[in-house]
Amino acid sequence: MASKPFAIIAGVGPGTGASIARKFAKAYSVVVLARNPDNFNPVVDEINAAGGQATGISTDLSDTNSINSAFEKITQQYANTPLAAAVFNSGGGFVRKPFLELTEEEFVSGYNSQAKGGFNFAQRTLPLLQKASGLPHPPTLIFTGATASVKGSATFSSFASGKFALRALAQSLAREFGPKGVHVSHVIIDGVIDIPRTKAWTFEHEDAKLDPEAIAESYWHLHAQPRTTWGFELDLRPYVEKW
Amino acid sequence: MASKPFAIIAGVGPGTGASIARKFAKAYSVVVLARNPDNFNPVVDEINAAGGQATGISTDLSDTNSINSAFEKITQQYANTPLAAAVFNSGGGFVRKPFLELTEEEFVSGYNSQAKGGFNFAQRTLPLLQKASGLPHPPTLIFTGATASVKGSATFSSFASGKFALRALAQSLAREFGPKGVHVSHVIIDGVIDIPRTKAWTFEHEDAKLDPEAIAESYWHLHAQPRTTWGFELDLRPYVEKW
Amino acid sequence: MASKPFAIIAGVGPGTGASIARKFAKAYSVVVLARNPDNFNPVVDEINAAGGQATGISTDLSDTNSINSAFEKITQQYANTPLAAAVFNSGGGFVRKPFLELTEEEFVSGYNSQAKGGFNFAQRTLPLLQKASGLPHPPTLIFTGATASVKGSATFSSFASGKFALRALAQSLAREFGPKGVHVSHVIIDGVIDIPRTKAWTFEHEDAKLDPEAIAESYWHLHAQPRTTWGFELDLRPYVEKW
Amino acid sequence: MASKPFAIIAGVGPGTGASIARKFAKAYSVVVLARNPDNFNPVVDEINAAGGQATGISTDLSDTNSINSAFEKITQQYANTPLAAAVFNSGGGFVRKPFLELTEEEFVSGYNSQAKGGFNFAQRTLPLLQKASGLPHPPTLIFTGATASVKGSATFSSFASGKFALRALAQSLAREFGPKGVHVSHVIIDGVIDIPRTKAWTFEHEDAKLDPEAIAESYWHLHAQPRTTWGFELDLRPYVEKW
Repeated sequence: MASKPFAIIAGVGPGTGASIARKFAKAYSVVVLARNPDNFNPVVDEINAAGGQATGISTDLSDTNSINSAFEKITQQYANTPLAAAVFNSGGGFVRKPFLELTEEEFVSGYNSQAKGGFNFAQRTLPLLQKASGLPHPPTLIFTGATASVKGSATFSSFASGKFALRALAQSLAREFGPKGVHVSHVIIDGVIDIPRTKAWTFEHEDAKLDPEAIAESYWHLHAQPRTTWGFELDLRPYVEKW
Repeated sequence: MASKPFAIIAGVGPGTGASIARKFAKAYSVVVLARNPDNFNPVVDEINAAGGQATGISTDLSDTNSINSAFEKITQQYANTPLAAAVFNSGGGFVRKPFLELTEEEFVSGYNSQAKGGFNFAQRTLPLLQKASGLPHPPTLIFTGATASVKGSATFSSFASGKFALRALAQSLAREFGPKGVHVSHVIIDGVIDIPRTKAWTFEHEDAKLDPEAIAESYWHLHAQPRTTWGFELDLRPYVEKW
Repeated sequence: MASKPFAIIAGVGPGTGASIARKFAKAYSVVVLARNPDNFNPVVDEINAAGGQATGISTDLSDTNSINSAFEKITQQYANTPLAAAVFNSGGGFVRKPFLELTEEEFVSGYNSQAKGGFNFAQRTLPLLQKASGLPHPPTLIFTGATASVKGSATFSSFASGKFALRALAQSLAREFGPKGVHVSHVIIDGVIDIPRTKAWTFEHEDAKLDPEAIAESYWHLHAQPRTTWGFELDLRPYVEKW
Repeated sequence: MASKPFAIIAGVGPGTGASIARKFAKAYSVVVLARNPDNFNPVVDEINAAGGQATGISTDLSDTNSINSAFEKITQQYANTPLAAAVFNSGGGFVRKPFLELTEEEFVSGYNSQAKGGFNFAQRTLPLLQKASGLPHPPTLIFTGATASVKGSATFSSFASGKFALRALAQSLAREFGPKGVHVSHVIIDGVIDIPRTKAWTFEHEDAKLDPEAIAESYWHLHAQPRTTWGFELDLRPYVEKW
């Protein structure tokens, strides 16, 4: 029934994902995915209460079956609705340990949450994005990166290998699907995001954490670009961040 | 008398610079700099006719005295007006030749137009940006890069060395002036821009040239970011561009 | 009995791995690992016939149990011998397909062969490298990269995500274990290697394929560097390669 | 008369340049260039006393006339001798200052010493390298880079813009002259070199400075590579360096 296009945001907790959902919900119906419904229920309720349309589906982004099951529901519910945007924002797989203390399972968790999750998300969303029509902006697939997407630091081998792999995926998809009309982007978040989990982290300077609402503005900006002028990669950091 | 903040755009022809001036003129008075008044007069007239405020100053961006002279006029005219944004968009110094056919003058012209021009522009604008107050967005200094900012191709040694040097300058300034409250960005334009000079260039696919209005939207987006969430580098290209 | 230090080369076919084994066998006993004994038997026989010491162990580098089993044999045989060098040269996981035709298994195979294989190899070799003493050169761990380590091309998402992840691992290990005395390097092979499998591939220019013996010389050069002056990354390509 | 090929090393003080001269003098006659003869006289004397052939020419690498004058002498003296290798190792143009305290002259000095100097050196040596024949190794042109070649830090805008520009030049030349048979390389020295000027600088760990003799070994290794397998870029740093 919804004649509005829809957007899917994967990886929605009370931080960046919620802000992206809120922002994209101003134009689209949104489907939000996260393992724990407690993570997405507040933003789903908030959007619906404000007159928007939001649905949450409990999904483990590192688990193929779970992603597949979520997309069965999505394709049923949105059979005749064009997919305008898909955002992969998984924060999973973050393990920080001396290398020789890592188990194989811990090491691989970085890849599973990031690149394998991103693979499954892209495989389910790209066919929908490619066939979407009548959209106000080109269909868009955005991946969230991190400092560890471009730098492998000591004790970050698990997360960095997952994030590097996700960036490789994003580059490959941008080069394959750009000419087919899907805008693929990769945003590098370089710093601590100001979310409930980091509230207690204090810094010498004020405003030293990234604002998730501002991150969402940048995702929307990338989405709104015409196909003549697409951004692939944007790095975001607080003004006082060392880099 | 102008209570609006102002912006300075250096390197304004009938392409990207004009689009950036047009965009920033919606919020600010604008000063546009270019060597040849024929390049900026149309956009100055257009902005003023539309109720905006624009001034053009004939300036050779590769010439220190010329830049200094332009900023004397600017600082007199805008003595009590905060500088909100400064954009360095020089297209000069583009020489493409087999290396052994380059004269030293030709080789150095890439640097002079880009990095030395950028140096002088930054030295004149950063003090104004730092002291600006009461602005709606953090004061911003944006440099225009190109494919040659990150890749030195055969026969591009002059332009690439100028663009690499400009990128080094942008990185250094972002790291020095970010913590002091000035947002410094570098935008990599990777492709042919759709301007009068390239009108006759045809491509296999439609929409294969960058739209200068869309580039201007991205510059404004960077400018409008809060200091918690600043983008340093964004690469822009048409959907069919090989990269 | 062997008083010579030893080296382990993982990923030994009739190409780069064999050349590296041959080169390192001039100074050390070598253990070579590959899935198929047919791949390493010729070089093992050649080294032993020439008066060197070589052992081959059939190992699947993408399989944890197989790697563990190989290292049980190795640690028994070389219990009192210092490990001088370890080279991870897996060529596995190369799948080239349009993204939407990839199965998850195919996508993950790039990671399994490269980064998970590299993880297991590093976990088994780093403790041996760290405790090695009396070596002529600092103990060294070298990973073989490819063009796909730094560029995710269309249809290369599987291999590129594996190679990007391996590079992240190499960077992380270099930063963690460098200060502990183990030299970690990553070599980017950018081009076609001149091996039996590529014999029929012809190019416009002669000498257009990488020589595996020359690659081995570069690996040895990295190994022989003193700890004051360690190379992390070196890119190798034929003189006519486009890049 | 000299039937040995020759090499030119530009930028020879009592550090890296001297070590490179010493290393290449084992195979070739060497010509060393530096502004101050006190900088090259000791190594020239040392090489000649040891049975090698070395000549020093006082040259200001940031001054075109001075470079031209040096090459007039060189082309006369070595008219019938093939040029095997040329190394550009200028350490000039290092200014470290807050950006707004830099004079234009100081800013430009980074470029003049590095990229303009490198341009003039390349223009004089490439014709000689291209026509060289009967060499044991492919003719080679190597540029010395630094941390500032790939990172523009705060207060390093002058040096970084010069080093970025030099790297752009090296990339352009590698792509243009590689297929013509000249091996062009760029070595990134990331750390403090152990030379007389840095003798007093102490670090927490021993061996924390780069050994110029080891740097010279890496330059020679690059020179000795066959054209099938050329390295373009190698980064060298002490084992304890943060990066």
